[in-house]
Amino acid sequence: MEITTYVDNLWILIAGILVMFMQPGFMLVETGFTRSKNSVNIVMKNFMDFSVGAITYWAFGFALAYGGSTLGGFIAYGNFFLEGDSTTYFFQVVFAATAATIVSGSVAERTKFSSYLLFQPFICGVIYPIVTHWVWSGQGWLTDLGFIDFAGSGVVHMVGGFAALAGIQVVGPRIGKFDDNGNPLSIPGSSMVAGALGVFILWFGWYGFNVGSALAAVDVNLAAIAVTTTLSASAASITAMYTSMIAGKPNVGMTLNGALAGLVGITAGCANVNNLGAVLIGTVSGVLVVYSINFIEKKGLDDAVGAVSVHGIC
Amino acid sequence: MEITTYVDNLWILIAGILVMFMQPGFMLVETGFTRSKNSVNIVMKNFMDFSVGAITYWAFGFALAYGGSTLGGFIAYGNFFLEGDSTTYFFQVVFAATAATIVSGSVAERTKFSSYLLFQPFICGVIYPIVTHWVWSGQGWLTDLGFIDFAGSGVVHMVGGFAALAGIQVVGPRIGKFDDNGNPLSIPGSSMVAGALGVFILWFGWYGFNVGSALAAVDVNLAAIAVTTTLSASAASITAMYTSMIAGKPNVGMTLNGALAGLVGITAGCANVNNLGAVLIGTVSGVLVVYSINFIEKKGLDDAVGAVSVHGIC
Amino acid sequence: MEITTYVDNLWILIAGILVMFMQPGFMLVETGFTRSKNSVNIVMKNFMDFSVGAITYWAFGFALAYGGSTLGGFIAYGNFFLEGDSTTYFFQVVFAATAATIVSGSVAERTKFSSYLLFQPFICGVIYPIVTHWVWSGQGWLTDLGFIDFAGSGVVHMVGGFAALAGIQVVGPRIGKFDDNGNPLSIPGSSMVAGALGVFILWFGWYGFNVGSALAAVDVNLAAIAVTTTLSASAASITAMYTSMIAGKPNVGMTLNGALAGLVGITAGCANVNNLGAVLIGTVSGVLVVYSINFIEKKGLDDAVGAVSVHGIC
Repeated sequence: MEITTYVDNLWILIAGILVMFMQPGFMLVETGFTRSKNSVNIVMKNFMDFSVGAITYWAFGFALAYGGSTLGGFIAYGNFFLEGDSTTYFFQVVFAATAATIVSGSVAERTKFSSYLLFQPFICGVIYPIVTHWVWSGQGWLTDLGFIDFAGSGVVHMVGGFAALAGIQVVGPRIGKFDDNGNPLSIPGSSMVAGALGVFILWFGWYGFNVGSALAAVDVNLAAIAVTTTLSASAASITAMYTSMIAGKPNVGMTLNGALAGLVGITAGCANVNNLGAVLIGTVSGVLVVYSINFIEKKGLDDAVGAVSVHGIC
Repeated sequence: MEITTYVDNLWILIAGILVMFMQPGFMLVETGFTRSKNSVNIVMKNFMDFSVGAITYWAFGFALAYGGSTLGGFIAYGNFFLEGDSTTYFFQVVFAATAATIVSGSVAERTKFSSYLLFQPFICGVIYPIVTHWVWSGQGWLTDLGFIDFAGSGVVHMVGGFAALAGIQVVGPRIGKFDDNGNPLSIPGSSMVAGALGVFILWFGWYGFNVGSALAAVDVNLAAIAVTTTLSASAASITAMYTSMIAGKPNVGMTLNGALAGLVGITAGCANVNNLGAVLIGTVSGVLVVYSINFIEKKGLDDAVGAVSVHGIC
Repeated sequence: MEITTYVDNLWILIAGILVMFMQPGFMLVETGFTRSKNSVNIVMKNFMDFSVGAITYWAFGFALAYGGSTLGGFIAYGNFFLEGDSTTYFFQVVFAATAATIVSGSVAERTKFSSYLLFQPFICGVIYPIVTHWVWSGQGWLTDLGFIDFAGSGVVHMVGGFAALAGIQVVGPRIGKFDDNGNPLSIPGSSMVAGALGVFILWFGWYGFNVGSALAAVDVNLAAIAVTTTLSASAASITAMYTSMIAGKPNVGMTLNGALAGLVGITAGCANVNNLGAVLIGTVSGVLVVYSINFIEKKGLDDAVGAVSVHGIC
């Protein structure tokens, strides 16, 4: 191989390692935003998200996404129990685990661990692979229609967000989330420091997510993607904070979710918009996430850590 | 561009990502070393340090530092609402946010969030850019005088430290910091584990800060900078620990601040001293920080997390 | 130097930075799995592990491992108070500190800090260097016998594990670990969230540890090593969880230690086994660690955070 290929692969590897590190970010957001009595349950779910995800994506997930043969652009097959294709597997498996983890946040505090264990292989090993086959395999029917999703706003965040929305409708709200008149009550999290650390870790890992999606380091402008990512997240956390102040004083949970919304919002277009565009996307995302959380609660749904709202932004 | 330029830019990008990750490090040091009742205030300040910093540095900070035209080497202009120059912007904006964050630590536990919000655009968008124009733009009057500051001991840490010193003189000590006779009292932090995690994260990010300041990966000896950085921090945490034992048993807060002092101390010369020099710089820094904290308290000032003392080391 | 050498060195540097970040991982595992009253003691030990380790490895550790001259392949000498060889020093010193830290976990909650301080220079500066001289210096007697240890299962983990085993035999169990009939009692940790964050950080750093041990980025398949590492850790955390369920419900501590066991287990062969082999190694490691912890407790020994059990896996 050429030296340029090795440099490209080196960056994809490092970016994949950064994305893997988003797992403790999700864990901290979820445990920080929820009550401490449920933290062991959340820790176990997050830990299994990655572990079960890695094994199922190796056994059959990769096969259904990039197996080589395709059934009409809908699903692939081949390369079960994968050997080889290491760079693609590694960068994809950390994305698959991310999609699964999004769901765990929304349904936090009211899901049995044993039930959740049954769900995991399904999202990492079946749903996520099929959707990526549509978009990123080069064989998918969405690709044929001209669909572009640079870093996975749709493939990862929308899939995760819709699965989470389905999840909160099935499990219903937490006991005590609504009063007798159906008005939402606040269930304070156990640690905003942990939640904020989680958001910072996610932001850090997101540079791997977005900039790594260039799948190259040579002949691309990686820093431009890092800049649009930074500007969108920053603008969104500022607007989310000011939007939350309409209802009183600045709300730290809304501000943190604002940053995540800005990151999700820029994920699809991070390589295709200029800096001003990124600031505008972030500005809108930060406002939207606050109203989205309120909207979901008015519908009688309970989005424990705001995951549906954040991931609906895309 | 040449392959070497892409490799250089890849390293600058990765180093910038590491420096960005120093933000949760500062947050954990500040929340760990202070009382838990103030942690939400600190989280919000740190979060806005980066978010407001990124937007203001994009809107006009970059313009005042590297805008292209200069007013007598004192201030630059041009390129407001920056498009392009992504690598420089990204590596610089994470430094600007660091300078702002230093201040937030010193004035912790007695600053209104709304007042702090007004201060942030000023340091990230005006003060820091002007000083960097003097030193790093190639057009500044300090450059003309032969001034060298490899990784920003002066530009980042001294600026942050002086701003912090001004800050603690303005806001005064925390209520309960001094008894009726003016003797300083200890205000125990909420979590030494969080504080230590923060220091480790800062140390980790500092490799991006110092080694990244080479602004290249080819034709430079990056590892040599990582080694001087490691040795200075290590020597300083050891000497700070032993110095703190003069007053009794080893003090964990002093030890952790010692490591930070060793990191600040080596930042200017990290690429220009040999290993023995780095050990000596660290040894002195670790002793100095302990006496510096005591000195500040004797003056009736209250440096909540030791930020002034640490950043005065340079 | 060639561009390929700079790319190789860049990856070794980044990998070393990742391994350095394992230090807060160990700290969090140890403080999370033990009682909060001992956390300051653990923080200080971990902090000194790296600081004292870096200074002693600089002063004489490197000399005894890679000094240039050898006494019969048993011990090296030369290059005391090292200048130069920065890439090798940096990547080795973070490994040496890791070996020391393993011990601190096993003997947690019953070791005086002052005694521990005397032990540290010995393991980082003498024991670890001598063993690495045997295996990695190109001059050692084990190399002559054909011994291979790609990333240090033996050199780091077995050395750390044996030192830890010796440690727990010397210091004896914690007061309250066994009832009057010698049956082991559970001493619950202070924070499973902190412990899990620590394990995730270690997993993250392990990519530096294993993949960095290729000591190159060009003409090697780095991603393949990242994949075997991922699969072994994932398989092990799953089997450890199910093995722990034999005694009742899923045990979070066992699951987390399972992941670490899978990481230790794959460290020697990570570049030489295929994916299926990695899954099998992980599967066995996850089962073994649970029985190993039980076995140690039946012997009347107390392995506070499971470090001996985890590192005996190799």
